[in-house]
Amino acid sequence: MTTFSSTNTKIKVAIVGYGNIGKYALEAIQASPDMECVGVVRRNGALDKPAELADILVVKNITELQGVQVAILATPTRKVEEYAKQCLALGINTVDSFDIHTQIVDLRRSLDAVAKEHGCVSVISAGWDPGSDSIVRSLMESLAPKGISYTNFGPGRSMGHSVAVRAIAGVRDALSMTIPVGTGIHRRMVYVELEEGADFKTIEAAIKADPYFVNDETHVQQVPCVDDLNDVGHGVNLVRKGVSGKTHNQHFEFNMSINNPALTAQVLVNVARASLKQQPGAYTMIEIPVIDMLYGDKEELIRHLV
Amino acid sequence: MTTFSSTNTKIKVAIVGYGNIGKYALEAIQASPDMECVGVVRRNGALDKPAELADILVVKNITELQGVQVAILATPTRKVEEYAKQCLALGINTVDSFDIHTQIVDLRRSLDAVAKEHGCVSVISAGWDPGSDSIVRSLMESLAPKGISYTNFGPGRSMGHSVAVRAIAGVRDALSMTIPVGTGIHRRMVYVELEEGADFKTIEAAIKADPYFVNDETHVQQVPCVDDLNDVGHGVNLVRKGVSGKTHNQHFEFNMSINNPALTAQVLVNVARASLKQQPGAYTMIEIPVIDMLYGDKEELIRHLV
Repeated sequence: MTTFSSTNTKIKVAIVGYGNIGKYALEAIQASPDMECVGVVRRNGALDKPAELADILVVKNITELQGVQVAILATPTRKVEEYAKQCLALGINTVDSFDIHTQIVDLRRSLDAVAKEHGCVSVISAGWDPGSDSIVRSLMESLAPKGISYTNFGPGRSMGHSVAVRAIAGVRDALSMTIPVGTGIHRRMVYVELEEGADFKTIEAAIKADPYFVNDETHVQQVPCVDDLNDVGHGVNLVRKGVSGKTHNQHFEFNMSINNPALTAQVLVNVARASLKQQPGAYTMIEIPVIDMLYGDKEELIRHLV
Repeated sequence: MTTFSSTNTKIKVAIVGYGNIGKYALEAIQASPDMECVGVVRRNGALDKPAELADILVVKNITELQGVQVAILATPTRKVEEYAKQCLALGINTVDSFDIHTQIVDLRRSLDAVAKEHGCVSVISAGWDPGSDSIVRSLMESLAPKGISYTNFGPGRSMGHSVAVRAIAGVRDALSMTIPVGTGIHRRMVYVELEEGADFKTIEAAIKADPYFVNDETHVQQVPCVDDLNDVGHGVNLVRKGVSGKTHNQHFEFNMSINNPALTAQVLVNVARASLKQQPGAYTMIEIPVIDMLYGDKEELIRHLV
């Protein structure tokens, strides 16, 4: 019989990708009593490694790390499937915050097959939306099966919209803020920093004609420095009014105001923990019991939370 | 091979107890496309059966019903364990809304053993609190593992407090309304209908000295008819402010304004459905994936809700 030290009983987690989410994921792992970060996978490996990684093993490929149980994929969304398959084939659970809503079912099918083949677990689309909001939406729909739900985002930065504006000729940098105006309708407040000699009116018209903006109320403002406006705060207001049984006018509402990458990283850490409690396969968060995402003794959690 | 008619593929549900929750449970079953009520168990059996039960088999004992898969225990909380054990021993899944928070872990242990022995499932404490609120509390705690949560109830009737007032000599009928004043503190608005010759000031003092009220701000008013004040609306405001990873000041809030028995009954129907998808044993709602509570194709639900 082998005796493990207490350190050895911690869940061994690797972080794949070290951008904004990766940095916050490291903090969330360090704040979790039952986890340890066994390494970070970064394109540049240990080259120019940031100060906070001084005590962390930084490598170019996950195969260089020992005993990884779960990989947190903090990569761009479009890279998730490729990295997930690589990790699953090594018998490593994966978690990601894949956020292209229309492709979630396909990704789940694809990773489910690979995960089952290698006896491991993949939790996909685990952030706040898709992610924790999905749990709230599902719960609200269960409480009032007939009715209408609205997800109102913001105020907060939309990455997709900001990237679309940056692609317009003459734009040096851009920020598109999503402002909720209720019933799932959003106003777009766009802040642009222009290239020398670019014409604001032309760019404003191009933004308003872009498919990302054409259906929404859009306001464009020129600013000297977009970076000065940077704030990773975000929020959501999720509402449902509907029918429980045959009783109408049941009202439900969920609100949050949060640091976006910090919450995404916390959710990734939670599902990393939960991944070790599921049968092989791929899961979205609504398929996992919420208790599995929490640290602690099961009966104590029930006593405290139910 | 046996061919089933579409009716035969519906989940066969019995309702045990036909008070307020039982009535709403019947409506929630009738509103669920995948369920049918195969009978109601009532102390008086078919004697004086209400008009809405005309087409429903009403019996005195669940053993008189055929093919029951799940029993909804719409009995008083203190009767839940006894009825649950009786049903589980017959191989019938049970669901209840047992609401004595301090005894949930014990009930779960007790029913877990019986359920496993008979290869069936029991979902306990499935209402809105304990119940759906427990899922929200757990989710919020997972999103910000350090921090403080407050559950603010009301405005709505507190059954326990109303019963305590009715037990005071000279009180004919009483209603205690729970009013949220924030941070988990509640004001008690008590409405009393007095017996002939009872002294209001004496009764007011007795209420304020009662253990149910002594720690809360309590206001007592005399009314001619308590029944005229009856409203089954209730509500909750659940808040958490805490830390995701190492990032402070994350805010979460859940609100609802609902018909109390209608929501409780809808939750019972949801977990009745979910009970058929769990391994044998006893569960609280935080141990069950939310998707299992919903009617519909799994991939369609994921497409629509995640």
